[in-house]
Amino acid sequence: MNTNFTPGPSQLYFTVEDHVRTAFKEGIPSLSHRSKKFETIYREATDGLRELLSLPADYQLYFTGSATEIWERIIQNLVEEKSHHLVNGSFSKRFFEIAQQVGKKAEKSEVAFGKGFGEQIQINNNTELIAVTHNETSTGVSMPLNAIYKLKEAHPEALLAVDAVSSLPFPDFNYNLLDTVFFSVQKAFGLPAGLGVWMVNEKCIAKAELLLNKGLSIGSYHNIPSLQAHAVKYQTPETPNVLSIYLLSKVVEDMLRRGISTIRKETEYKATLLYQALENHSLVKPFVQEKVIQSKTVIVADCGDHTERITKHLQTKGMHPGSGYGSFKKSQLRFANFPTHSKEHYELLVDSLKEIV
Amino acid sequence: MNTNFTPGPSQLYFTVEDHVRTAFKEGIPSLSHRSKKFETIYREATDGLRELLSLPADYQLYFTGSATEIWERIIQNLVEEKSHHLVNGSFSKRFFEIAQQVGKKAEKSEVAFGKGFGEQIQINNNTELIAVTHNETSTGVSMPLNAIYKLKEAHPEALLAVDAVSSLPFPDFNYNLLDTVFFSVQKAFGLPAGLGVWMVNEKCIAKAELLLNKGLSIGSYHNIPSLQAHAVKYQTPETPNVLSIYLLSKVVEDMLRRGISTIRKETEYKATLLYQALENHSLVKPFVQEKVIQSKTVIVADCGDHTERITKHLQTKGMHPGSGYGSFKKSQLRFANFPTHSKEHYELLVDSLKEIV
Repeated sequence: MNTNFTPGPSQLYFTVEDHVRTAFKEGIPSLSHRSKKFETIYREATDGLRELLSLPADYQLYFTGSATEIWERIIQNLVEEKSHHLVNGSFSKRFFEIAQQVGKKAEKSEVAFGKGFGEQIQINNNTELIAVTHNETSTGVSMPLNAIYKLKEAHPEALLAVDAVSSLPFPDFNYNLLDTVFFSVQKAFGLPAGLGVWMVNEKCIAKAELLLNKGLSIGSYHNIPSLQAHAVKYQTPETPNVLSIYLLSKVVEDMLRRGISTIRKETEYKATLLYQALENHSLVKPFVQEKVIQSKTVIVADCGDHTERITKHLQTKGMHPGSGYGSFKKSQLRFANFPTHSKEHYELLVDSLKEIV
Repeated sequence: MNTNFTPGPSQLYFTVEDHVRTAFKEGIPSLSHRSKKFETIYREATDGLRELLSLPADYQLYFTGSATEIWERIIQNLVEEKSHHLVNGSFSKRFFEIAQQVGKKAEKSEVAFGKGFGEQIQINNNTELIAVTHNETSTGVSMPLNAIYKLKEAHPEALLAVDAVSSLPFPDFNYNLLDTVFFSVQKAFGLPAGLGVWMVNEKCIAKAELLLNKGLSIGSYHNIPSLQAHAVKYQTPETPNVLSIYLLSKVVEDMLRRGISTIRKETEYKATLLYQALENHSLVKPFVQEKVIQSKTVIVADCGDHTERITKHLQTKGMHPGSGYGSFKKSQLRFANFPTHSKEHYELLVDSLKEIV
């Protein structure tokens, strides 16, 4: 059996193929998105996510084509002039660049790949939105939850946007201290790519309406007022990826049955296992050195000249690590630690790494 | 066996379920969109479409989340100030409204549902883009190709955008007389929803670059320069719906094997069969009276008070018509005539309609 450790698209959640079979039996792939049955699927997916993530009642959930789309929609809908971005990798940088492309005055606090932001983050007071990447998929740096909440404390007037693309459902966010959070389904939820999930609170809805009333263009079919008008009816403005919404509803149901606290504990256990193995290894070390910012869901190993040899050794055992990102392609390996990766997968991975000396 | 005649999402192309099985065997649903294998899939899908549709070499193909997204992207990328929309149904109207939402001076020529535009279409000379809906899914009106080409003749300086969402691959367009054409895969290509296909010529690419160089915002990851920079490498800016692009490549291959001229001839045959049955029926008539604008791919029947009875009769035989659109929900039925609908499906449909007196 092959195990895919790439951090996204990643290994499918182990129940997905069965759910696809059922979907075809039930006619889901050609189901009308204006049917009652679709509304039920939408409701099951979003109610399930509310329960799994303990979302407060004032949060709304929308579906988009990708998390990349959500970057653009957040800027369009929630920023009139100025956003501030915490940049420490390729994906947080892209969010910043998209804000510029959409025509806003985007500012940033930038640190090197593999680093965190420390205590002093300078953000101007007239910033409308602070953009944080909870888990940098490119570097394996995770921002501690308290550090995220402190941003809200220091800038209560700004909206706080959290990119949780490669961490949810692992982090136990206090959503009352955040304003909008998003992810895409092909990472830790283990689904085929092609769907983004965007969660917003009432302040976001109010801000989008404010910009619209000022006569600004906030997009069209996927602006928040349009998404919201449809979401309350469990519908989408366009013909969406119906099959993917169905599969999400089923995988969320599976995760609820397993229990979010079990999923979180297992994630912690597997992460500890791999970080210990990397620390104790003679040829390899964790790329992220500062323990408090080491990601639990995307673990990056500095393998230097041994990268190719390690990759090949793991592959002979059916394990496929992700390559390093960008300029680290040939010197690092990335390991997704998602709910579909079992303790046994991780034990085998760690044992196999130990064999390489 | 059930046959779904709703005009979209419609009945799946009959090979799709097999292709999904193969996709899972080959690991397509968790394939990295930055892998060589994905590039091969992208190339097969787009090369296949080029051949199936006889696309000129200067056309480029991009993938989006939906055709609704393409409406927005066309306006963002190809219009600085003014677009003109031919409106004769709900979907052409929505394209017009999106242009307004994106902040352009959108003008329209509007006729009633079920009607065509005749010979005299007044379009201002400073119009940058003329938006035409080849096939109005809401009403079953199709614009004759010559009438579309005449718009280009009269306004050679404007870009001509054609919404072919519910007609391609049926129409044999002369793409040299058009500038951008688009569709979504859940209609006549018979795939699960969640992918739009956007085809643009070099004039569109040049126009988007012109607007960008003027400092206008033309969107971000899905603006034409970004899509184009990735498309030449057979890649996408974001993590796309990989499974859907794979399925499209396979269904296009199947259609090429069957032959586009066979598909077109069978579509004509089936349309003739149904229109004749509607003409000769004592209780029912075609909603679109003017023959030259009767759609071949979405055929709308005025059923008045008999709508429910006809629907039930067809359903007892496993045939599921689409309901009328909007205010026609209770008085019309819509029948998709797509490549997945066989001659036998249509013969059974027509025979069953004749039984209702």
